[in-house]
Amino acid sequence: MKLVEKLESALSPDRVSENQTLLEQHSSDESYHTPNLPEIIVFPENTNEVSAVVKIAKEHDTTVVPYGFGSSLEGNVIPYDGGIVMDFSLMNKVLEIRENDFLVKVQPGVTRSQLDKELKKYGLFFSVDPGADATLGGMASTNASGTTAVRYGIMRDQVRDMEVVMADGSVIHTGNMAAKSSSGYNLNGIFVGSEGTLGCFTELTLKVYGIPENIMAARAEFSTVDDAVEAVISILQAGIPIARVELVDEQSIKQMNHFSDTDYNAVPTLFLEFHGNEAGLQQDVEFMKEIVKDMNCQEIEFESDTAARNRLWEARHNVAYAYIHGHPGKKQMVTDVCVPVSELAGAVKDARAAVNASGLEGGIVGHVGDGNYHILLMVDVDNPTDIEKANKVNERIVAYALERGGTCTGEHGVGVGKRKYQEKEHGNALAVMRKIKTALDPDGVLNPGKVV
Amino acid sequence: MKLVEKLESALSPDRVSENQTLLEQHSSDESYHTPNLPEIIVFPENTNEVSAVVKIAKEHDTTVVPYGFGSSLEGNVIPYDGGIVMDFSLMNKVLEIRENDFLVKVQPGVTRSQLDKELKKYGLFFSVDPGADATLGGMASTNASGTTAVRYGIMRDQVRDMEVVMADGSVIHTGNMAAKSSSGYNLNGIFVGSEGTLGCFTELTLKVYGIPENIMAARAEFSTVDDAVEAVISILQAGIPIARVELVDEQSIKQMNHFSDTDYNAVPTLFLEFHGNEAGLQQDVEFMKEIVKDMNCQEIEFESDTAARNRLWEARHNVAYAYIHGHPGKKQMVTDVCVPVSELAGAVKDARAAVNASGLEGGIVGHVGDGNYHILLMVDVDNPTDIEKANKVNERIVAYALERGGTCTGEHGVGVGKRKYQEKEHGNALAVMRKIKTALDPDGVLNPGKVV
Ligand SMILES: Cc1cc2nc3c(=O)[nH]c(=O)nc-3n(C[C@H](O)[C@H](O)[C@H](O)COP(=O)(O)OP(=O)(O)OC[C@H]3O[C@@H](n4cnc5c(N)ncnc54)[C@H](O)[C@@H]3O)c2cc1C
Ligand SMILES: Cc1cc2nc3c(=O)[nH]c(=O)nc-3n(C[C@H](O)[C@H](O)[C@H](O)COP(=O)(O)OP(=O)(O)OC[C@H]3O[C@@H](n4cnc5c(N)ncnc54)[C@H](O)[C@@H]3O)c2cc1C
Repeated sequence: MKLVEKLESALSPDRVSENQTLLEQHSSDESYHTPNLPEIIVFPENTNEVSAVVKIAKEHDTTVVPYGFGSSLEGNVIPYDGGIVMDFSLMNKVLEIRENDFLVKVQPGVTRSQLDKELKKYGLFFSVDPGADATLGGMASTNASGTTAVRYGIMRDQVRDMEVVMADGSVIHTGNMAAKSSSGYNLNGIFVGSEGTLGCFTELTLKVYGIPENIMAARAEFSTVDDAVEAVISILQAGIPIARVELVDEQSIKQMNHFSDTDYNAVPTLFLEFHGNEAGLQQDVEFMKEIVKDMNCQEIEFESDTAARNRLWEARHNVAYAYIHGHPGKKQMVTDVCVPVSELAGAVKDARAAVNASGLEGGIVGHVGDGNYHILLMVDVDNPTDIEKANKVNERIVAYALERGGTCTGEHGVGVGKRKYQEKEHGNALAVMRKIKTALDPDGVLNPGKVV
Repeated sequence: MKLVEKLESALSPDRVSENQTLLEQHSSDESYHTPNLPEIIVFPENTNEVSAVVKIAKEHDTTVVPYGFGSSLEGNVIPYDGGIVMDFSLMNKVLEIRENDFLVKVQPGVTRSQLDKELKKYGLFFSVDPGADATLGGMASTNASGTTAVRYGIMRDQVRDMEVVMADGSVIHTGNMAAKSSSGYNLNGIFVGSEGTLGCFTELTLKVYGIPENIMAARAEFSTVDDAVEAVISILQAGIPIARVELVDEQSIKQMNHFSDTDYNAVPTLFLEFHGNEAGLQQDVEFMKEIVKDMNCQEIEFESDTAARNRLWEARHNVAYAYIHGHPGKKQMVTDVCVPVSELAGAVKDARAAVNASGLEGGIVGHVGDGNYHILLMVDVDNPTDIEKANKVNERIVAYALERGGTCTGEHGVGVGKRKYQEKEHGNALAVMRKIKTALDPDGVLNPGKVV
């Protein structure tokens, strides 16, 4: 039997496709990386089908690239070897909400907004909130994070257990439902962030949180990015349990105003949020006000009303789309370093200098409470000098971070775009990672050419 | 050259020993597991020496068991193949305190009390606090936790980076100093909890926290363990960010009073602690008081004074030693399951029934905020029926936990004692763990016969 026939008989003909439009849709992500067409797209509906596809791929000596929402930014999902793309969009059920355990069990194709809508009925929320409406399978696979990581942690912190189809088609569980375990090697940790190269996630058990009773959001305006960053460092040092703290620079506020119909002053701004009981939150906010004043904050505006808060965070979440929208025909290159907080002020200053030197248009936004920030650069992918300039910025930023104990990617993952920095960042550890890849996927079936 | 000569020339003769007393000291842990003598003890002083020892062991086809403080409870450290025990007690320096990043860099032989003494000068503390004064290398290796995990997390949550000597003598770093990273596979996660079977830790970079400005401890007395456990569940469900919540049952309070010279009522008791800003903490405490009253709390006593608080927590930390002291000639067998919190009340009830049915003396204590509790059983290791009874209790407790999505060990690790449950708990995942072990230590040099 031919590959496609085998797949059709394992799934069903209507969920195996060679349609050109579908192939094209699955040939790229949201970034500047060069697309490449897969040969076949499959849409599994359950774990057995996922396992069958992986086994068939192995028999036919071809490859499988898992695909969530395709919103990744480093070519993580692009099938450079052709082969099969496994689209998880039909595995999109919220399977179980264990209110009393603050746990939820989902299929990998559930998106974060879909999950949050379900959870709201129970007074719960899921904390990880990337700017795209990504799938939870994709988010686990890139170890995504977002605006709340400073308080609630990153994707890896939320994963209690995953059902994973391995490269040989066998099915494992990586954890359990207990809050902690010292039993056997911690597989959750290694599978989260593996970018589809070690296994296909078919079910995830995730931590969720009670919606805080009191929430206060704020926008604090500064005259320099430096002051804003110093204010963040002081807030963290003061031990204020801040729930969100995001930097949006002048250029990015401009894009935001245009795209999200806001009318914020185009100055370096912190978007903040506080969660807590009523009395504690008020004391935190008062303390924070003093701190930002000491750091030359020009203006601070509070939003306790839910609708106003949502508007503020939606505008923040859409900054990347705002840039894309504002630069038709161009593609986005996003840096993603993360540095120890003590190095943040210097790093952001150097980043701004790098953008200015490049002559490219771009702004800085970031989850600065974690030491993670992005330069959003708009590039014309058909113009080699644009790409070269953007690459130069990226390389300078990464070198700066690595010299100071940071990492080349805080949340977007390696994909193909950050592979060139792996040797420098990990040294001998890269060989250990490769040994693990080889042990678990000896034939290189899963997302070849990515990460290691 | 003979093995011992090679080791002497790689280290120095005074740090390689075949002394019988030293061999005996390194033949056991703090548990009921049968001791076994190693052939040689080495005391490395730096990473190069650790690497040299591992290489020499491989050449001589012998084994290396890393050794911290020897306080583990599942035979994790017992050299059943003889070979070399590598004692890390001379690598006991606090190397760097990065106040502004809330990070500390230590050698693996630093003990938790030694670290805390250093950190205090900076207004910082390290959160993981097992009942023994364990080393940080040992704690990372068993993924230890303690009374504060419910708020600050477990050992794995604190590890940013480790320097690790691999089975082939190569040296790697598992992470970096940034707060988050999606770069390459997460090696921190897999090495923490690997119990000396994947590598020897020679340096650890750990998260630390600011000492909270306001701390309130409390002891809440109940007439039944059930009520106490239900109170914990309600506190968690209410979203109160409790810093510590420990269950100590009636029998354990009696042992505590005897050993620690306290005079607490011998009834099921919760030991609690709250951290926060002044106003928030007060509101949390008021809310908690209401909740425990609803759960039939008989008496609640608060301790805000530092000395009184320390006395309370010292008594709690010493419960296991209290049992040992109170039963001369007997050894301790400690269960360590962890269950989803919704299953905790049933689990603790079943545990009490199991102890009663066994006829052995024992009590229940636990980090109940995590769903983790211990039965402390005192057994006469020379009496086979005692061992058999204790084994039966353990097996029943573990079966109960595994059927409900829990784990056989929440914090003590697998060692040899929990190996028999690995197949049932992990299923196909055990094969994946074994592949990782084989890939990273193909000759089985490191702590053979443990975990997988
Ligand atoms: C506007 C915008 C804003 C963004 N903001 C953020 C942000 O704030 N934080 C952040 O972390 N990221 C952000 N991203 C990047 C992106 O959203 C994340 O990387 C996200 O995790 C990708 O999820 P996805 O469902 O789109 O996965 P995809 O892009 O489809 O896939 C990502 C990776 O996961 C693998 N994968 C997908 N599903 C599975 C599965 N079931 N099993 C195994 N592997 C699988 C793929 O093979 C690939 O390697 C942003 C992207 C955009 C476009
Ligand atoms: C009274 C008492 C109370 C306890 N309370 C708790 C508790 O509340 N929570 C808890 O989690 N545990 C508790 N324990 C168990 C014990 O303290 C922990 O398991 C601790 O982490 C062991 O640390 P150690 O330094 O004694 O390590 P050891 O016992 O010496 O070794 C433990 C494991 O780590 C490995 N190891 C040691 N050093 C290294 C290194 N440098 N590199 C690689 N591997 C290494 C060893 O090979 C072994 O597998 C308690 C024990 C006692 C006796």
